[in-house]
Amino acid sequence: MAFTVTILGNSSAKPTSNAHPSAQVVNLNEQYYLVDAGEGVQRQLIRRGINPLRLRAVFISHLHGDHCFGLFPLIATLGLEGKRTPLDIYAPAPMGEILEFHRRYFWDDLPYEVKWHEVRTTEHQIIMENNTLEVWSIPLRHRVPTAGYLFKEKQPGLNVEKFKIEKYGLSIAEIVAAKRGEDIVRNGEIIANEELTYIPYKARSYAYLSDTNYSARAAERVKGVDLLYHETTYSEKENILSKGRGHSTTHDAAKAALKAEAKRLIIGHFSSRYKDYEQLAEECRDIFPETYIAREGETFTIEQRG
Amino acid sequence: MAFTVTILGNSSAKPTSNAHPSAQVVNLNEQYYLVDAGEGVQRQLIRRGINPLRLRAVFISHLHGDHCFGLFPLIATLGLEGKRTPLDIYAPAPMGEILEFHRRYFWDDLPYEVKWHEVRTTEHQIIMENNTLEVWSIPLRHRVPTAGYLFKEKQPGLNVEKFKIEKYGLSIAEIVAAKRGEDIVRNGEIIANEELTYIPYKARSYAYLSDTNYSARAAERVKGVDLLYHETTYSEKENILSKGRGHSTTHDAAKAALKAEAKRLIIGHFSSRYKDYEQLAEECRDIFPETYIAREGETFTIEQRG
Repeated sequence: MAFTVTILGNSSAKPTSNAHPSAQVVNLNEQYYLVDAGEGVQRQLIRRGINPLRLRAVFISHLHGDHCFGLFPLIATLGLEGKRTPLDIYAPAPMGEILEFHRRYFWDDLPYEVKWHEVRTTEHQIIMENNTLEVWSIPLRHRVPTAGYLFKEKQPGLNVEKFKIEKYGLSIAEIVAAKRGEDIVRNGEIIANEELTYIPYKARSYAYLSDTNYSARAAERVKGVDLLYHETTYSEKENILSKGRGHSTTHDAAKAALKAEAKRLIIGHFSSRYKDYEQLAEECRDIFPETYIAREGETFTIEQRG
Repeated sequence: MAFTVTILGNSSAKPTSNAHPSAQVVNLNEQYYLVDAGEGVQRQLIRRGINPLRLRAVFISHLHGDHCFGLFPLIATLGLEGKRTPLDIYAPAPMGEILEFHRRYFWDDLPYEVKWHEVRTTEHQIIMENNTLEVWSIPLRHRVPTAGYLFKEKQPGLNVEKFKIEKYGLSIAEIVAAKRGEDIVRNGEIIANEELTYIPYKARSYAYLSDTNYSARAAERVKGVDLLYHETTYSEKENILSKGRGHSTTHDAAKAALKAEAKRLIIGHFSSRYKDYEQLAEECRDIFPETYIAREGETFTIEQRG
């Protein structure tokens, strides 16, 4: 079951000639979720071979233009593409008013429903759930109300050891019961479930924390995350400027990854002043070695681990 | 004095992996004017080496998203870039309301003024004027109120023939007077102005007609234009579909160019169904041989002619 994150943009505020503003796609088992939607996101999706019609939901961290100006043209295009099923949008207020405005001026004939779900940026809670995934909001510390998102795969179902099936001569009904976590009872004798089954792999997780000052509490809330995206707008040399603007430096991001006990850190949302992202990554690696750059078009895979 | 048109986007409605929606830059004597502003226009400007701060004014043909969704992020970025002088925006109503909405939700701290000038899409009139340029609105026939724009260079000032200066021994005051178009009077004798002066080159013009059904009246209003951009969303094979959607086919565009007695025709605003624009250009050339494709990044130069 695939669990990947594809970077569609990594620049902060101003796009540059070779960088788009914030946008990513999370793919869990061929279910696609858009995370932030900077200008140009619909074209970036097409360029990366992701059909916008496949998006299940959109998660917007906050209502600065570089995180959402691409959403409105995307919604228009999905209408032209003949979308009929609703599009769920998770975002802080007043996204509802903003969508209503666009409906009035630009989408009077949209053939599908755009459903806004308000994300309360001061609360850490589950905001979306389906068979394979939970998404949690993470309060962040930016200049405007902002939420990060934690994508938590649900614990995969139990498997039954093949050699135990043979050893005990388990029937299909017994195998199904064991997969449900039940013990097997035969003539009053019990075969404990844990004797028969194993967890095929550990549930995986991805956290998106942008835009934000360093927040120990946010890091705590994504503890043990497999892959952490943390905004890194500035070099540590700009730490005073960074704090004042509600952003993070390289060291902030690395400290958050350390605190969260993340397996890997992806940095992005770079200020347009930087051409050499490798230098920023190096600053992070002084504190957190497993640091990677959110390069446009790159896909990060979260592998299954036993 | 340069007079050029640079294509930033040529696709209709939906962007594709290799095409941006409508946007162009007109450069007259290093004064830059943006014509339509599809999504991604700010990045397209940077990619083509045009500093967005140099834009004098923006002309929007109509309020479909593929012609204006790039304007709002551009305005935001100009704020971040420290723009202080006003930005003039010429567009049909209700652009004023749309700008006001963005001011409320996205630009509360914009450091410059955004000045909207209403373009009445049923009237053919001068809407902007400065020392070198007049811009006229051209009523078009689309599904929503739409204006084309005619960029008319002002007639360049008179030059005085060098050999006439010598022949008559003209003083500097007399040369200045001749350049103003005055006759020279000496001891009751008159040297006629046309004996001394010549027009260095003919005033040039560019017309932007998008989006529209074929309109003989619009073509009449740009009569003699040097360079005509006419939308060409469809092949002639789709002429029924095209009419119903308020668009033009290859033959519509070519007929308009013929009717306008244009020197050259540029076609663009192609439906995403076409990969081979050359085929569309060939259809036009059956009627109007001097047809060119609005390829992204291409600059068309209007040369001075005597």
